[in-house]
Amino acid sequence: MSDAVTAEPELFDKVVNLCKRRGFVFPSAEIYGDYSSNKEYGPLEELLLRNYKDPYWLKNVKLRHDVVGLDAAILSPPAIWEASGHLQNFTDPLVDCTNCGARHREDQLEDPDVCPNCGARGAFTEARNFNLMFKTQAGPVEGAGADVYLRPETAQGMFVNFKNVLNTSRKKPPFGIAQIGKSFRNEITPGNFVFRTREFEQMELEFFVPPDEGQRWYEYWLEQRYRWYVDLGIPEAKLRLRAHDPDELSHYSAGTSDVEFLFPWGWGELEGVANRTDFDLKAHADASGDKLEYFDQASGDRYVPHVIEPAAGATRSMMAFLMAAYDEEEVNDDTRTVLRLHHRLAPYQVAVLPLSRKDTLTPLARQVRDQLQPHVMAEYDETQAIGRRYRRQDEIGTPLCVTVDFDSLDDDAVTVRDRDTMEQERIPIANLVEHVLGRFAD
Amino acid sequence: MSDAVTAEPELFDKVVNLCKRRGFVFPSAEIYGDYSSNKEYGPLEELLLRNYKDPYWLKNVKLRHDVVGLDAAILSPPAIWEASGHLQNFTDPLVDCTNCGARHREDQLEDPDVCPNCGARGAFTEARNFNLMFKTQAGPVEGAGADVYLRPETAQGMFVNFKNVLNTSRKKPPFGIAQIGKSFRNEITPGNFVFRTREFEQMELEFFVPPDEGQRWYEYWLEQRYRWYVDLGIPEAKLRLRAHDPDELSHYSAGTSDVEFLFPWGWGELEGVANRTDFDLKAHADASGDKLEYFDQASGDRYVPHVIEPAAGATRSMMAFLMAAYDEEEVNDDTRTVLRLHHRLAPYQVAVLPLSRKDTLTPLARQVRDQLQPHVMAEYDETQAIGRRYRRQDEIGTPLCVTVDFDSLDDDAVTVRDRDTMEQERIPIANLVEHVLGRFAD
Repeated sequence: MSDAVTAEPELFDKVVNLCKRRGFVFPSAEIYGDYSSNKEYGPLEELLLRNYKDPYWLKNVKLRHDVVGLDAAILSPPAIWEASGHLQNFTDPLVDCTNCGARHREDQLEDPDVCPNCGARGAFTEARNFNLMFKTQAGPVEGAGADVYLRPETAQGMFVNFKNVLNTSRKKPPFGIAQIGKSFRNEITPGNFVFRTREFEQMELEFFVPPDEGQRWYEYWLEQRYRWYVDLGIPEAKLRLRAHDPDELSHYSAGTSDVEFLFPWGWGELEGVANRTDFDLKAHADASGDKLEYFDQASGDRYVPHVIEPAAGATRSMMAFLMAAYDEEEVNDDTRTVLRLHHRLAPYQVAVLPLSRKDTLTPLARQVRDQLQPHVMAEYDETQAIGRRYRRQDEIGTPLCVTVDFDSLDDDAVTVRDRDTMEQERIPIANLVEHVLGRFAD
Repeated sequence: MSDAVTAEPELFDKVVNLCKRRGFVFPSAEIYGDYSSNKEYGPLEELLLRNYKDPYWLKNVKLRHDVVGLDAAILSPPAIWEASGHLQNFTDPLVDCTNCGARHREDQLEDPDVCPNCGARGAFTEARNFNLMFKTQAGPVEGAGADVYLRPETAQGMFVNFKNVLNTSRKKPPFGIAQIGKSFRNEITPGNFVFRTREFEQMELEFFVPPDEGQRWYEYWLEQRYRWYVDLGIPEAKLRLRAHDPDELSHYSAGTSDVEFLFPWGWGELEGVANRTDFDLKAHADASGDKLEYFDQASGDRYVPHVIEPAAGATRSMMAFLMAAYDEEEVNDDTRTVLRLHHRLAPYQVAVLPLSRKDTLTPLARQVRDQLQPHVMAEYDETQAIGRRYRRQDEIGTPLCVTVDFDSLDDDAVTVRDRDTMEQERIPIANLVEHVLGRFAD
């Protein structure tokens, strides 16, 4: 990490504004006054998230022969969270201000004596444990027996289904179970845009290994997951691996490291990679009475696998990619805003723009779009002046603009404009697909 | 629909058994005793669901220029459900048995006078309305102001975000907003495997059109969505389009038809296509005070678009595909179970099987697998006798098995076995990818 890189507070507002203005992220239920603990992901963010999750799944599940997928339930019975320790320990310290009634997370107060809401000093109650799990009731009969929880993490689904997956998938350690899905935490103070929301999406992988291979696989996944962010374009100066100090480690962990990104307000976790040992499987085996272990018929070995867990936040990572990609530069006395997203993440890889809205250009422009669409995600836009359309594509991170002009009708060629350099190149339509795919080869 | 086709009750248990045995669907939290209102989707179902949802998204969103995607929040404030009518009307009639205390959905009782739990006659209370929405509390402050609901459908997310999407996406009617995601309904009596679960996945599309184009687009989407099921292999004899009778129609609907599948217990809905008129946008405009309308700058027209909604159940559809694909046939005095899934839906398109576990075959077999993997989802299995492995692949619906035998070491060829016909063909390894892709061309 370079010492020259520092947090950029003003970047935060710029990215949040762009996200709203261009259709990445909207306030939740905004017509009813912004239900603030949540966000809605608009058309561009939906594409971006998909461009992020699909390659994760391809690389870590489909193209691997030692990882399978799972889609476990969100609504889950208390027994799971009793065994995992969440019912007892998944809490944050909550204090009330006796002056104004506001509630705060004690460990996040800038001044532990002063209420940030009303300014009262020394008016806080003693901190008490506030459980972060959302509880609801299932079925028509009320009472404690009907309690269910919204999962606060996807991980427990992999542990609870370990035996069923092991018995049906024909995998043996080392092997993993992965899941992408929504989780829910009743945060006392959600905030920092989509960094901490009550509803969020995780990409988690539980990798089960023979006990003596834990350290080796921990290091393997650390390396794999760090490279993931670098390969998709986060500058290494804004990325770091931070090993937890011994006093910071969970009691069951033999090692945890976070992949952290330098957000506008400082370093924040994108993903944690943990050696969870045999804690989880043993806890669920003890609580359920089921054996959660592996028996190797060839060697006669029987053991409880150790678990290496790379646990990433999908929505949170997207925010890091947007922050890292945001750039402004002076062009002809004007400020150009450009989102320098990796071409694999960009919502659209190409925008096809007829120079004018004249009907004469529309048929050819649409033909060009249809030619590209099977190969790349292509947007088509014929509204407004061409300058404003370039500006929009720069702001939503489209790597290439293909402009169809009146010359195109004669020379069967189009102009390809590069988002980052703004350089333009004339390309015959017949070679366009090949040219575009060549630009996206890496 | 042919009169000869009838429901097959015994099919139900067979498919449910296969799903558990082979790793499609597991009981929820089974080690804690099967939390019955839910299911967990195992590795094969995860692949199947993905093979179903991804092409839906490709066809209906990414390859269309008039539909964009959305990923709205699951946790949502009461104002949405007040305006949509769900708080008042999204209920089922609930009766209590005064003899045993069991609760039932009145409209699903076989005999409206007899408790199916204890057999008591005439012991039911008056029916009362039971709201199907799950409620929880968000934030650290208790009380009514903290109430939030788990969405019972994804559709309202599209209406609530209509203005933000319209303003940022540069689309104009006719255009649609689509969403795939989990919804939650506190069913009084969940059941029929994954047909009615409290947590389920929807694929919904709200298509906004000029008011006078409602009927045309309703017919268009009906045709599109019916073809979808046929194209993916549901026999037309087990599929029907059923228009709602006038007295069955919601008060706001100008027309609704269900795509229905002949389940083992009778006809059941896979998808509803509805002409919802301007009901939803007007209801949210009235409740929020926001204008939810379209203004056409060119013509000066201002109107509230009408909405055509194709709303499909993803998990429920998967069950229909499994039921339709399940087959048994006598082969050499033995019963062969085969899942005749469309090759695009099958979890694995190809299984690569070395004839014996002898180390001599492993390197070549893995090389064959690695050659296929970039093009199709390829499973690799070297456990057990070859006959049992064929049987497993038949049961999980793998269209092609590629067997590497000792001759392969000399002739550089493999045997390709067809799931449906069991015919085998010798194919040079050099031509294998081309051969396999040719079999999957449609």
